[in-house]
Amino acid sequence: MQAARLHEYTDDMSEALSIDDVDRPTLERSDGVLIEVKGAGWCQTDNHIIEGMWQEYAPQDLPMTLGHENAGIVAETGDEVTLVEEGDPVICHPVQTCGICRPCRLGEDMYCENSAFNGLTTDGGFAEYLQTNERAVIPLPDGVDPTEIAPHADAGITAYHATKKAVRELNPGDTCVVIGVGGLGHIGLQCLDAMSAADIVAADIKDDALELATDLGARHTVNSADEDLADIIADLTDDEGAQQVIDFVGRDETTALAPEIVAAGGDHHIVGYGGHIHEPSQALVNGEFAFRGTLVGKYAELQELVALVDRGDVELRTERHDLGEINTVAERLEHNEIEGRAVVLPP
Amino acid sequence: MQAARLHEYTDDMSEALSIDDVDRPTLERSDGVLIEVKGAGWCQTDNHIIEGMWQEYAPQDLPMTLGHENAGIVAETGDEVTLVEEGDPVICHPVQTCGICRPCRLGEDMYCENSAFNGLTTDGGFAEYLQTNERAVIPLPDGVDPTEIAPHADAGITAYHATKKAVRELNPGDTCVVIGVGGLGHIGLQCLDAMSAADIVAADIKDDALELATDLGARHTVNSADEDLADIIADLTDDEGAQQVIDFVGRDETTALAPEIVAAGGDHHIVGYGGHIHEPSQALVNGEFAFRGTLVGKYAELQELVALVDRGDVELRTERHDLGEINTVAERLEHNEIEGRAVVLPP
Amino acid sequence: MQAARLHEYTDDMSEALSIDDVDRPTLERSDGVLIEVKGAGWCQTDNHIIEGMWQEYAPQDLPMTLGHENAGIVAETGDEVTLVEEGDPVICHPVQTCGICRPCRLGEDMYCENSAFNGLTTDGGFAEYLQTNERAVIPLPDGVDPTEIAPHADAGITAYHATKKAVRELNPGDTCVVIGVGGLGHIGLQCLDAMSAADIVAADIKDDALELATDLGARHTVNSADEDLADIIADLTDDEGAQQVIDFVGRDETTALAPEIVAAGGDHHIVGYGGHIHEPSQALVNGEFAFRGTLVGKYAELQELVALVDRGDVELRTERHDLGEINTVAERLEHNEIEGRAVVLPP
Amino acid sequence: MQAARLHEYTDDMSEALSIDDVDRPTLERSDGVLIEVKGAGWCQTDNHIIEGMWQEYAPQDLPMTLGHENAGIVAETGDEVTLVEEGDPVICHPVQTCGICRPCRLGEDMYCENSAFNGLTTDGGFAEYLQTNERAVIPLPDGVDPTEIAPHADAGITAYHATKKAVRELNPGDTCVVIGVGGLGHIGLQCLDAMSAADIVAADIKDDALELATDLGARHTVNSADEDLADIIADLTDDEGAQQVIDFVGRDETTALAPEIVAAGGDHHIVGYGGHIHEPSQALVNGEFAFRGTLVGKYAELQELVALVDRGDVELRTERHDLGEINTVAERLEHNEIEGRAVVLPP
Repeated sequence: MQAARLHEYTDDMSEALSIDDVDRPTLERSDGVLIEVKGAGWCQTDNHIIEGMWQEYAPQDLPMTLGHENAGIVAETGDEVTLVEEGDPVICHPVQTCGICRPCRLGEDMYCENSAFNGLTTDGGFAEYLQTNERAVIPLPDGVDPTEIAPHADAGITAYHATKKAVRELNPGDTCVVIGVGGLGHIGLQCLDAMSAADIVAADIKDDALELATDLGARHTVNSADEDLADIIADLTDDEGAQQVIDFVGRDETTALAPEIVAAGGDHHIVGYGGHIHEPSQALVNGEFAFRGTLVGKYAELQELVALVDRGDVELRTERHDLGEINTVAERLEHNEIEGRAVVLPP
Repeated sequence: MQAARLHEYTDDMSEALSIDDVDRPTLERSDGVLIEVKGAGWCQTDNHIIEGMWQEYAPQDLPMTLGHENAGIVAETGDEVTLVEEGDPVICHPVQTCGICRPCRLGEDMYCENSAFNGLTTDGGFAEYLQTNERAVIPLPDGVDPTEIAPHADAGITAYHATKKAVRELNPGDTCVVIGVGGLGHIGLQCLDAMSAADIVAADIKDDALELATDLGARHTVNSADEDLADIIADLTDDEGAQQVIDFVGRDETTALAPEIVAAGGDHHIVGYGGHIHEPSQALVNGEFAFRGTLVGKYAELQELVALVDRGDVELRTERHDLGEINTVAERLEHNEIEGRAVVLPP
Repeated sequence: MQAARLHEYTDDMSEALSIDDVDRPTLERSDGVLIEVKGAGWCQTDNHIIEGMWQEYAPQDLPMTLGHENAGIVAETGDEVTLVEEGDPVICHPVQTCGICRPCRLGEDMYCENSAFNGLTTDGGFAEYLQTNERAVIPLPDGVDPTEIAPHADAGITAYHATKKAVRELNPGDTCVVIGVGGLGHIGLQCLDAMSAADIVAADIKDDALELATDLGARHTVNSADEDLADIIADLTDDEGAQQVIDFVGRDETTALAPEIVAAGGDHHIVGYGGHIHEPSQALVNGEFAFRGTLVGKYAELQELVALVDRGDVELRTERHDLGEINTVAERLEHNEIEGRAVVLPP
Repeated sequence: MQAARLHEYTDDMSEALSIDDVDRPTLERSDGVLIEVKGAGWCQTDNHIIEGMWQEYAPQDLPMTLGHENAGIVAETGDEVTLVEEGDPVICHPVQTCGICRPCRLGEDMYCENSAFNGLTTDGGFAEYLQTNERAVIPLPDGVDPTEIAPHADAGITAYHATKKAVRELNPGDTCVVIGVGGLGHIGLQCLDAMSAADIVAADIKDDALELATDLGARHTVNSADEDLADIIADLTDDEGAQQVIDFVGRDETTALAPEIVAAGGDHHIVGYGGHIHEPSQALVNGEFAFRGTLVGKYAELQELVALVDRGDVELRTERHDLGEINTVAERLEHNEIEGRAVVLPP
């Protein structure tokens, strides 16, 4: 079968992956599930993996097939699988978990001690077939198209997970700032709108993104290339600040906003991760705020997101590309040219 | 009356405050309470105020009487006060709150929009008398000595508040690291022991402090001048990390430990604030951990801490000094020479 | 001034209250606030007070002016009041709290140890003027009409408070059952819709109420006079049950539904209180569910509800009556003839 | 092998179970684990099962081997088991879960949709061997004796689970009432003491039990055969009530205490289940308290309890009996004659 594989780390996205002919995976365990991939979202993290940014954090044997945002049709199942059968449409949580370790027993899939992460520590889904396991697949409701929903497997669940943490702290009348209305941000914004009655302020540097934000439920928008976000938040909140900030960008200049825009006792959630945090400890003490990292999300949260999609509360903006165009996709994302999310279609 | 006052910011602790003769305060509001001060704890924050580190965060009119850790005897009350009467021993929450703004209505005393902070934004208690209000005083149980308990008004409540946030996330078998077993740390450690069944690891650079930690309930101690704290935590936790870290130091080198010592999903609480945080956003994402600032604590938390003291669960290590020796106290703290907490006794 | 007062307990609503001429209240404390009443909602609890059902729980000196759902214009203020001034439109939380006791310090207004409850333990607002205090009034946003919003002071806040407890436990895809779409239920339903992405099932015995429920966001409606609610919930939830049930009725027959309709680990919130709970302990153990009582709500929650009204997320269905018609209102409610909520207008 | 089996429901404990010769179980799934039973606790629920009280709630095919509190040595494992191997000492969570359904994914083992409950819906551990699965076994720390720890598999985890829910709501200075200091109560009390700084009041009708309670950390004890528990709680709490009540008895007369002894906003946890709840809805509303059922506990909670045992924070009082004496054990419990917990030892 065809698969888009990384052979060595590079900063040149035009030759990031090569389309190789490889063997179709063979199921070996009783809980194995083989998926015929119908859609595979391209993620900023794919660019980061290609650049080698994840070497320090996760073991990687190259060459490796990338792709952690997948949905498709069940092609084969191990002999003790009961949740799905051949022909079922499913979305794939990116992490294959063991179900045995303590984090798994607490429902904390991302902290599984025996996990494999598609396209990061094991072969992923930019390929005709993806091997995963029963604990990583979620059957789709009738009428939900696997190609359409694929980006929720990572972009969606990551945005949802961060949003859900924020929603727990938001009351009606509170303010939530969404920094970055791109692939993740435009999903997070819709989740916020569906699950809270907070006033949403969306910030981006592209006017198109801000128009989209307004359509999707933002009460205020700020073009942070032209306007001072801190001043605007101060005005909107009587100098109190926003109770929650979800930072889908995570650059030095966005994390630096926290002391000015987060209300006392509030949180600045770090979702995007291009840059750094540089703050005096005293700033966190004085405002009693937190920088909270956020990492993908739980299997149960992906179920909840699928429910939101099924209710019509969240819709994706996507563009579709053939597997052969995959490096073009990588370049377009690098240049911030993708609207919403790019989905790659295997042959 | 005599009061120890700051006239100008300085780094020279030997002449930090001067003992002035000032008028005894006069109650003006129906909820006013005048306290004859019996003990006033000296705090690292007093050094920071003297150095001018709080100018940026809080408005200050000099000269000002410092002192935010006070306990004493009620000397006079406004005409609508019902909670206390003349002669009652009390401990003073450092913040005088309005009881009207939304943060007050949520029980969030530290975020009061109309507050005065003793010794930071209004005259404090390094003096014979302190003016405060009904919402800032807590009657002491029988047998509790105001001089003895004074440091709990800030050191105690700050340690308790941070600890309580950590305890909410700790299960039996989990690990909690306490960094710095000084004025605050030795209180926080006892609160942890009383309120959780986590395994406590205490780290300090003084062996005396570590002996104290063992006496007060630490299961493991680490002299971080000699030993590698990250390696030890990895060993003790099977490479999982500590679910909670309470950093009573807050320097660059202690905040930098977070990615290595905090377990996935855990928190690094920033209590001390001498230094900075410098981290790539990716570190917070990869470990899904948080840096959480902590700021003093709520009035209701000071009630809870008084209950812990009354139960015998928390005891203070203190040394006592006359008001005239106050700059010596400032210097001793600057040189890390104080055991536990210094209490100043007005004449 | 005119006031509708209860002289003795009775089951005959046609002569429940008498319109008396009484003195206008005089402010005595520095935090007193006198309100010119513009609207006073009639509540099922007023009927229960008239029947004597609250004698056992709250001390009452008759005669007493009833009315705990009030909004109006500030007519006079005590000399230390800063939150409002003469002429400001406000809604009145029904409980005047002290701001000093521990429950107040925790933000738990309903548990204040020194409180007065309008129209239950002190004179209420079925009158031209109502005496209350600064901690009980909330300034209204521009454009919000006091007469229109009055019922939120009790019906609204009670529905909101119960709903907020339920929302904390609800995830997208979960089911929440609302039993009774009357004065409180039609508010609770809108709060649920604004603050969660749960599937709402509304049950009532009147088709009009169910039509209203559909308009306000219910996904399914059940006429429980004709249909078996337990069967329908089982069908809708694959026999799992509803994660949360909010019972605005609280009769024997509605509380008896809990073991059948509440999902494992879920809650049956008791808001209405006409009847009883009769269950074997084993039923609660087997389903690990809870019966959770709910009592009005916090001041801060009334602020949040006002924000929902201001956003347009919650609207009231009301009918208006002059003070002289007050016993007719009492009778109409007794016979379940009121659509939404009745508001009494003082002269 | 020998197994103590129930052939028909009866109220006569002297002939409750018969010792049968049955086949040793054969592992059929890849995750199967066969345990050589070293200890099997006898539980009040065993009496209730024998009486037929669980027929309505759980499907049962008689004859069935009872016994849901087991610990032992791994005798054989399915071919994909990695957590344990032959010879490992383990304690057995009573429920074998699937790891696939949504409750399992949330960590809610007790709500598993495909579970088998040892000794309730499938053969249990009053036998030489018990068949269970990988997700139900927890390896024991060095030095922990399987026979000694066996009762924690159900008595312990149930007490811990209820206690943990209570602890989340308890602050230092709060009061927690433990009703019934028997097999479960004496464990719950120790968990409370280890995990909170609340004042524990223990109530029982046997003086022996109260002496044990004092030894294990109760601050006050009440013999409720002689003394009025409600009066004593009112005295101890300034008429405020206890923030949390854990009712290990669950009879009509203990649940009836709730309106008098539970503080506003508090909980009455139902663990024991012999009797009923009969309350007017108004009582729950007026005190805003809850009756919360509690059902065994999660696998992760059993891990936490094992950690408490390993720390020395919880110790069991047990008496040991041979399998052949099993009906004597049933009778002794029926007559309230067992101190702590009875453990049955298979041959």
